[in-house]
Parts: sequence; structure tokens; C-alpha cells
Amino acid sequence: MPFLEVKIARGHTLDTKRELARSLTDTLVAVLGTQPEWVTIHINEFERENWAVGGLLHPERHPERST
Amino acid sequence: MPFLEVKIARGHTLDTKRELARSLTDTLVAVLGTQPEWVTIHINEFERENWAVGGLLHPERHPERST
Amino acid sequence: MPFLEVKIARGHTLDTKRELARSLTDTLVAVLGTQPEWVTIHINEFERENWAVGGLLHPERHPERST
Amino acid sequence: MPFLEVKIARGHTLDTKRELARSLTDTLVAVLGTQPEWVTIHINEFERENWAVGGLLHPERHPERST
Amino acid sequence: MPFLEVKIARGHTLDTKRELARSLTDTLVAVLGTQPEWVTIHINEFERENWAVGGLLHPERHPERST
Amino acid sequence: MPFLEVKIARGHTLDTKRELARSLTDTLVAVLGTQPEWVTIHINEFERENWAVGGLLHPERHPERST
Repeated sequence: MPFLEVKIARGHTLDTKRELARSLTDTLVAVLGTQPEWVTIHINEFERENWAVGGLLHPERHPERST
Repeated sequence: MPFLEVKIARGHTLDTKRELARSLTDTLVAVLGTQPEWVTIHINEFERENWAVGGLLHPERHPERST
Repeated sequence: MPFLEVKIARGHTLDTKRELARSLTDTLVAVLGTQPEWVTIHINEFERENWAVGGLLHPERHPERST
Repeated sequence: MPFLEVKIARGHTLDTKRELARSLTDTLVAVLGTQPEWVTIHINEFERENWAVGGLLHPERHPERST
Repeated sequence: MPFLEVKIARGHTLDTKRELARSLTDTLVAVLGTQPEWVTIHINEFERENWAVGGLLHPERHPERST
Repeated sequence: MPFLEVKIARGHTLDTKRELARSLTDTLVAVLGTQPEWVTIHINEFERENWAVGGLLHPERHPERST
């Protein structure tokens, strides 16, 4: 039944997304005692220029990072 | 006043989106007795590789489907 | 596969929620050709004092309404 | 047209919410050049025990704070 | 930087929420290589009568369950 | 601690996004008395063909506008 949305910066590999989906699902199953089939995961990627902390867009705040 | 967000896989036609917006709005008007002008719809398309059920990304779970 | 969240004011009856879930699901099945079992609906109720249009909280904008 | 959701801890006064709705709307109007009537604001209050940073729920991380 | 929202039925204990926050954060740190301090978790609890799968509200679909 | 998501049509300049992040953060700091570093902003851009009011997709409703 749980629905999980995780917002991360765009640019992660398919392997990372695969591992993210698998391990987040495992975590929910272990902690909540739910069935894997009941867990839906949405990886919501944001452009770095659409995310800000402390009033600064991500590219201004962390110009050296790509993800 | 209602705000409705529907998350669907990317790849539907403009006609389908048009019909989706129209019919979801009609449904809210019929059930809630609100005015069409008060209904906002957001079609939030996700990439199939960003959606997982049962710990598997959509392309791994349903390799034969494109939407 | 679709996930639908509808934000409405708190105060609707269980019958209205039941009808809302049924008819929104029917609409997605009819328009997208998906299976009912793949449709998840989240009715996200908000307190009227937590919703604003035009800069005014709902109770100030529509003092005569209860939902 | 913009829709803004702000997640804050439960416990703010109605006056604070009123000021929040008004000033966030003013900000969107000033920066985006939209009309106030097109701006919807949703104040989504969370319980402090439902919010975590650094793996710690808010009451454990900031035991001295009430909001 | 990641922001994670997990929607679960209301009724879990504080211990479960604590474990959920800790283990989801650990998972994101392990998979994405981020710092714990950058991870925010929002446990968004829904009432069972506000959640539907297959067009049926949760209490009608699973009358025997309380969470 | 606050997390703010604003949904706007795609097509705004980087300068506008920068100003949006800065001024929304300032607003939250001024009204809530929080620290800038605790404020996260997510600018969630939607395609105009994915947004509807009154049952009409944005391009049909406002064919003359580009954002």
C-alpha cells in the first residue's frame, strides 16, 4: 500500500535507480511488514537549476557538482 | 477548489491528455458539485525507468510495454 | 500503474469519498485503458484554513461555505 | 496558474497562515507577473514526529522546539 | 539534497516511524553516496478511508486490517 | 525545515528562477522566523499540455501564451 516518492537531482545511472528502487522497497518491507508488490516507488528527478537551499539554486550553491 | 494530480507514464497522445483533463474534471463536478472553473488538473508524466512496483523498475517488470 | 491524488476540503461524507474513488478509477480505466487494480487514489483533505486563492485563506474568501 | 505547496510543522497561528498566504502570493505575482487570482496556496502541515532530517525525527533532533 | 515522502496508513507507532526515518535515510546514503544531513524524510500518513485501490476505499477492500 | 514546491509552466529564464528561489526563501524567513539554510525550494515545471483548468488543457485555454 505504501507509495514513496523520492526527489533527487537528474543524472543518476539506470543501475543506481534500479538499486534505489530495490533497496527502498526492501526497507519498507522490513520496517512495515508489507508485501513488495504493494510498494510503489516514484523517482522524481529535478533539474539542478530547479532546486534551491538557503535561497540559492543548486548550480550556484554547488557549482562543482553535476548531480 | 479541488486540485488533482495524476501520475502516468510518459507517452500518451495529446488527444488522450485532452480527454483525461475533460473527463476527470467532469467527474469531480458530478461527484463534488463544484464548478469546472475551480478544478485544476496536473498530468505528471514519469519516465518508465523512474517508476517501480515490487522493487522492479517498470521497464524490467513490463519489458513489452511502451507506456 | 496510475497514481492519482486529489486535494479537496475536509468535510465530505464517506459516501462521497466512496463515489469519488469509484468514479475517478472508472475514468482512468476508460481513458487510459488500464486495469482498475492498477489505479491508486489518494484523497488528500485539507483544512480550509490551509488553502488560499488570490492571497486569501479559504474561510476569508468564502466565509459562507463549510466545505 | 501557479500552484504552491509549502510543508511546515503544525502549530502556527491562523494569523501566521494568513500572512504566509498573502506574502507568498505577492511574491509569485511580483516575480512571475501572474495575477493573484491565479495563485493557489496549500499549507501542508506535518506532525513533528512525521518529519526527519539526518535520520532523526524532528522531536528527537530538536526536543526543545514546539513548531 | 534528496527529499523523500512516504505515504502510509495512519496508525504506526512512534518506534516504527523512528525506524522508518533511520533506515530510509541509511538507504539513500548507501545508494546515492549523499550525507545523512542532506536527507529529509516526510512520513505522510493517510486515513484509510482516503485511500483506494481498484476503485474501493481501503476499509471496504481490507475490512479486517487496521493499518 | 520548510519545504516548498511551486508548480509553474515551463519556459521561465534562469534569472527568474533565481529570483523566485531567493524571494520565496526570504518570505518564509520573514513570516516563519526560520533560517534560510532550513528552506528548500523545488521549482516543479510542467508542460503546458499537462495542465488544465475548467477541463481544458492550457494550450487550448490560452492559445496566445507561451508560459
